Amino acid sequence: MHFIAFLTDWGMTSYYVGIAKSVMKQINPGVEIIDITHDIEPFNIREAMYILQRTFPDFPPGTIFCSVVDYGVGTERFPIAVELANGSFLVGPDNGTFTLLIEQYPTKKTVILQNPSYFFRLNPSSTFHGRDIFAPVSARLSMGVPLEHFGPVVNDLHTLTVNQPNLHNHTITGEVAFCDRFGNIETNIPGIMLNNFELQPGDPLNIVINGRSFDAVFFEAYGLSKKGQILVHTDSSGFVEIAVNQGNAREALLDNKDISQISILNKKIK
Amino acid sequence: MHFIAFLTDWGMTSYYVGIAKSVMKQINPGVEIIDITHDIEPFNIREAMYILQRTFPDFPPGTIFCSVVDYGVGTERFPIAVELANGSFLVGPDNGTFTLLIEQYPTKKTVILQNPSYFFRLNPSSTFHGRDIFAPVSARLSMGVPLEHFGPVVNDLHTLTVNQPNLHNHTITGEVAFCDRFGNIETNIPGIMLNNFELQPGDPLNIVINGRSFDAVFFEAYGLSKKGQILVHTDSSGFVEIAVNQGNAREALLDNKDISQISILNKKIK
Amino acid sequence: MHFIAFLTDWGMTSYYVGIAKSVMKQINPGVEIIDITHDIEPFNIREAMYILQRTFPDFPPGTIFCSVVDYGVGTERFPIAVELANGSFLVGPDNGTFTLLIEQYPTKKTVILQNPSYFFRLNPSSTFHGRDIFAPVSARLSMGVPLEHFGPVVNDLHTLTVNQPNLHNHTITGEVAFCDRFGNIETNIPGIMLNNFELQPGDPLNIVINGRSFDAVFFEAYGLSKKGQILVHTDSSGFVEIAVNQGNAREALLDNKDISQISILNKKIK
Repeated sequence: MHFIAFLTDWGMTSYYVGIAKSVMKQINPGVEIIDITHDIEPFNIREAMYILQRTFPDFPPGTIFCSVVDYGVGTERFPIAVELANGSFLVGPDNGTFTLLIEQYPTKKTVILQNPSYFFRLNPSSTFHGRDIFAPVSARLSMGVPLEHFGPVVNDLHTLTVNQPNLHNHTITGEVAFCDRFGNIETNIPGIMLNNFELQPGDPLNIVINGRSFDAVFFEAYGLSKKGQILVHTDSSGFVEIAVNQGNAREALLDNKDISQISILNKKIK
Repeated sequence: MHFIAFLTDWGMTSYYVGIAKSVMKQINPGVEIIDITHDIEPFNIREAMYILQRTFPDFPPGTIFCSVVDYGVGTERFPIAVELANGSFLVGPDNGTFTLLIEQYPTKKTVILQNPSYFFRLNPSSTFHGRDIFAPVSARLSMGVPLEHFGPVVNDLHTLTVNQPNLHNHTITGEVAFCDRFGNIETNIPGIMLNNFELQPGDPLNIVINGRSFDAVFFEAYGLSKKGQILVHTDSSGFVEIAVNQGNAREALLDNKDISQISILNKKIK
Repeated sequence: MHFIAFLTDWGMTSYYVGIAKSVMKQINPGVEIIDITHDIEPFNIREAMYILQRTFPDFPPGTIFCSVVDYGVGTERFPIAVELANGSFLVGPDNGTFTLLIEQYPTKKTVILQNPSYFFRLNPSSTFHGRDIFAPVSARLSMGVPLEHFGPVVNDLHTLTVNQPNLHNHTITGEVAFCDRFGNIETNIPGIMLNNFELQPGDPLNIVINGRSFDAVFFEAYGLSKKGQILVHTDSSGFVEIAVNQGNAREALLDNKDISQISILNKKIK
C-alpha cells in the first residue's frame, strides 16, 4: 500500500483539504492519506521545504509526497512530479519546495503535469491546482500509473538558495528553517554540530541574525533562566532552536527578510 | 463505497469530533469519513450553509453530508435527514443550513430522525445530538438503511433568507458568505458576474455594506496597493472576496449583523 | 478491528502527528487511528487526564488509547502500557495521565516499555518517544501482541491528586478540569450534582477558586445576562462549566496554580 503524505498552507479552517481528499479517494478509494500539516505559513515555501526534509525519513519508500504551498498571485510555477530512486514521488508546484530532498536523495525522473486526462476536470481551474491537478495525480501515482504518462520530462528544477549549516573557528552558521506557533526559531543546524562547542547549561553564546548581534545562553530549564533571555538548545527534532524565555523569538530577533542567515559564536572560547 | 463528509463548529481542540468518528466507525467500520472542516465559527449557520454549497460539487453522488452547526441554547430544531435525487444525503438539525443545497439540487424525501433504535444510545443526551443522533444515523445511511426507517416524512424545511447575487445597472448585489481566518470577507457573488465590469487592475469600485459606503479598487498584486486599501477580487474559490491590504476587512467593514448585504458599484462608468 | 485513539499536545501545526501515524500505519496498515485531539495545552497532564476520562466511554472495548502528553525537559517518566479488564489499553508516559481511568476501570496488568525489538528504531531518540516508542507499541498492541512481550510488569503507577467532586451542606467542591479555547472553565463536577441545588435561571451562586470568592448566577441565555457576569451551567459534556458573559473566565478567575480547587455555594439557601 502506498501512502499519500499531504502538506499544504491551506489551514484546517478552510474546506480545501477536505475537497482534495475527496478527489484522491474518488480515484483510489484504498489509498492512505496522512496529513503532515496544513498549517504551513501561507506562501512560506522555505518552511515547507524544511518540513518535507524532516518528515521524509519517517515515511516508507513508495510514499507520494503531495506538497501544495506556492507564492501568491501571478507567480505560479509548472506543476511537476519527481520520481525518486527509492520509489517515492514528490508532487507539487516547481518552486523550490523540493530543493533539500532532491539534493539529498537520488532522483530518477521529473515530468511536467500536462496530460489533462489525469486531471480532476478536463479544464482545470486556474487557481485551484491542489484539487484539479496535484490531488488527482497523487492518487494516480498511488495506483501505479507510470510517471511518463503525466507529461514531458523536464531536467531543470527550480531550487532555493540555502545557507547550509557549517562549523568553522568556533562559529556555526546556518539559517532560519521556520518558526513554530510559539514564535520559537527553528534553525537548519543539527544539534550534533552544536555538541562540538562542549557547552554546559548557562554557557554564554553570541547569535548574529541578518547582521544584528544578540547575547544568548545555552539552554537550561526554562524556570532557571531570566524572563526575556535568549536561549539556544537542541529541540526534540534534533535541530538547534532559538527561544526567548516567556517571549517570542521571532518578534525579538527576526526582521521580514525571506532568508535569515544565522551565526552562533561560542563565547566560552576567548 | 460511501463517504461521510463531516462539518461542525466544534473545533479541533475539542474531543467531540473524535467521539463522533468513534461512533460512526463502530457502526460501519468501512466507512470513509472526510472532514470538510470543524472550524465553522460557533453557531454560524450561514457560514455552514455556504461551505456546504461550495464543497458539494466535489463529493461523489451517494455522499452523506453530516453537518452539525446549530444556534445556541434552547433553540434546537428537529434533527432531519434529506435524500437528494443524486443519492446523496444531508443529515443535521433543521435550521436552514441546507437552504442553498435544497434550492439547487432536486430532493426526494425528508424525514425527522425519531427512531431511537438507530440512535447511539436509547436515551440520547439532550445536548450532544452530534454523537447520539447525527453520527449514528449518518453511519446507518452509509450502510444503505432506507431513509423512511429513521422517522416520519416531513415536507416543510426551515430555510434562511438569502440575498441572491444579482447584476443590474453597473451594480452587483449579494451578501457576506463568511469570513476567513485572516478577516477577509468572502461573498456569495460569483467571479464571472464581476467579469461584466471589464475591470483592469487598479480600477476604482464602491462597496456598500449594510448601508455604509467604502472606496475600493479592483485587486492587483498586494505589493502594489497601499496599506489599508480595500481590495476586491475573485479568489481561488471562484467567488468575489473583499480584503484590506495588510489589514482585517471583517473589522473594518462589517458590523455585527447576522446578515450583511453587499453592493459593488462600478465607478469606471460615469 | 481495533481503534487507536490518539491524544497529544503536539498541535496540528507540527508535523509530529503525521510522523507518528506513518509509523503506526507502517506496522499495521489496517489499523483505524481516531484523533481525540492534538491540542491539549502543552505539558498539561491534568487536561489530558480529564479528556481521556470523558472520551473513554464512547470508544469500544479493545481500543488502544495512545496518550502522549508529558512534563517539560528532564522530567520524563517510564513509558508504560496498561491492559484494562475490558480489553482496552492505555499507552503513554507514566506521569499520572491515566489516574482517573485506572481508578474507575479494573486493570489487568501494566508493563514498562523496554523491549527495543518493538521500537521504531533500535536506538530510540531521547526526545521523541511518541514516534519511537508509543506509536509502534500502540500499533503492535492493535495486532494482538501480548502485553508482557513489551517489558517487565510494574505495579505502582504514578497518579495525580484529584479533588473529587463532593456535595455537602449546600456547597459543591471539585476542581478545574481544563479550559476551552474561549477561556471557559470546565470543572470535574457532574451536572447531576448541581441539580441538587434546584436552581432556577438567574439564581445567585457563590464560587470560591483557590480561596478567592466570586458572585455568579445560574446560567440563563447569554443574551439575558450582563456583560462580565459570571455564569454557571451544565454544558453539553454533562459537567459544570463556568463562563464569563462576553469575557474570559480563565483570565478573570484563575491564577497560575497547577491545581485549582473550586467550591460552588448555593446562595438561595439562607
